[in-house]
Amino acid sequence: MLALLPLLGDALPLVPTDARWIGVALGDLDAIHADHLHCERKAAQSALSLIRSYPERTDLVTAMARLAHDETRHVVQVSQLMARRQQPAAYDFGDDYAVRLRDHIRKKEPLRLLDRLLVFAVIEARSAERLQILADNLEDERARDLYASLATAEVRHRDIFLALARDTDGVTWRARAAELAEIEAEVFIDRPITARIHG
Amino acid sequence: MLALLPLLGDALPLVPTDARWIGVALGDLDAIHADHLHCERKAAQSALSLIRSYPERTDLVTAMARLAHDETRHVVQVSQLMARRQQPAAYDFGDDYAVRLRDHIRKKEPLRLLDRLLVFAVIEARSAERLQILADNLEDERARDLYASLATAEVRHRDIFLALARDTDGVTWRARAAELAEIEAEVFIDRPITARIHG
Repeated sequence: MLALLPLLGDALPLVPTDARWIGVALGDLDAIHADHLHCERKAAQSALSLIRSYPERTDLVTAMARLAHDETRHVVQVSQLMARRQQPAAYDFGDDYAVRLRDHIRKKEPLRLLDRLLVFAVIEARSAERLQILADNLEDERARDLYASLATAEVRHRDIFLALARDTDGVTWRARAAELAEIEAEVFIDRPITARIHG
Repeated sequence: MLALLPLLGDALPLVPTDARWIGVALGDLDAIHADHLHCERKAAQSALSLIRSYPERTDLVTAMARLAHDETRHVVQVSQLMARRQQPAAYDFGDDYAVRLRDHIRKKEPLRLLDRLLVFAVIEARSAERLQILADNLEDERARDLYASLATAEVRHRDIFLALARDTDGVTWRARAAELAEIEAEVFIDRPITARIHG
């Protein structure tokens, strides 16, 4: 069963990034890195917020603490990349992509937990796709290596969220994952092409 | 200058823990560990919230990402200790000790940042004292070793916050640190003795 998660996860995201995005991203790498720093920070914060909400789920607590541990290392790595580029930092402008996805989280438990986990899974899948596109196209070798390693980590995180979703509701998690993947595709193709990780 | 920070920090906390606390703590270790898990989680979240607020402070971003990386490892370690003890988890009941300290954070920048850093420093100092008391008194050897290593980490974190405070306002940081240390002492001696890390 565990072995099937990558197979399911690799179907995500349902729609690929527009081929024009990488040109926009490479045209403003400062904006990409600054936005990416906040994405990694928010991923760590989201994992910690799940620990706050579900301390009785020992499996989830340990998995989310480990995931936040990964994401905080990514924040260090991206901040070091930014320092090396002597680039200006930027405030977090919010992420209406994530906000629009979170609107689909149902209110009642355990559906709420299931949806939170699956929304995180589809966001990780999209992040992995975007970071891999950057890794494939960046000129700077160190930045390329960093983005390739981060893309791999996001794929692993995607499967961690899928495994926790399966363990939360073994009956409906697949169907709901498919629904949220469709919703992600709709939200995603609706967006303007910008120099942001989810833009 | 950096070498002076431990000297200043080692004066914290101003008042020691009541000798009766360790008896209460040892009498309900489940409550201590469950509370401690949330303390470590909230320490990571606080560090990440500083990155959100001050992304332009590159030194702070890297230091806080590293600190959150440490704290998330501690969450993993405490969750593993709890799993080994097969103990029930508990929800976070909030921490009115931290809330009362945060009431003293001034609103206007850069005083707000200075105060946030110094409040975190005094909380880390208190946490270090408490974790060391646990390390000195726990029967279980692995738990003792864990708590001793966590106490050492909190001392290091205390000094990181003091260094960032110094770099935020080189003129007033010492006087303000002394004021907040006094406030911490007042808040602390006022509290009932309970089986919590700051209780």
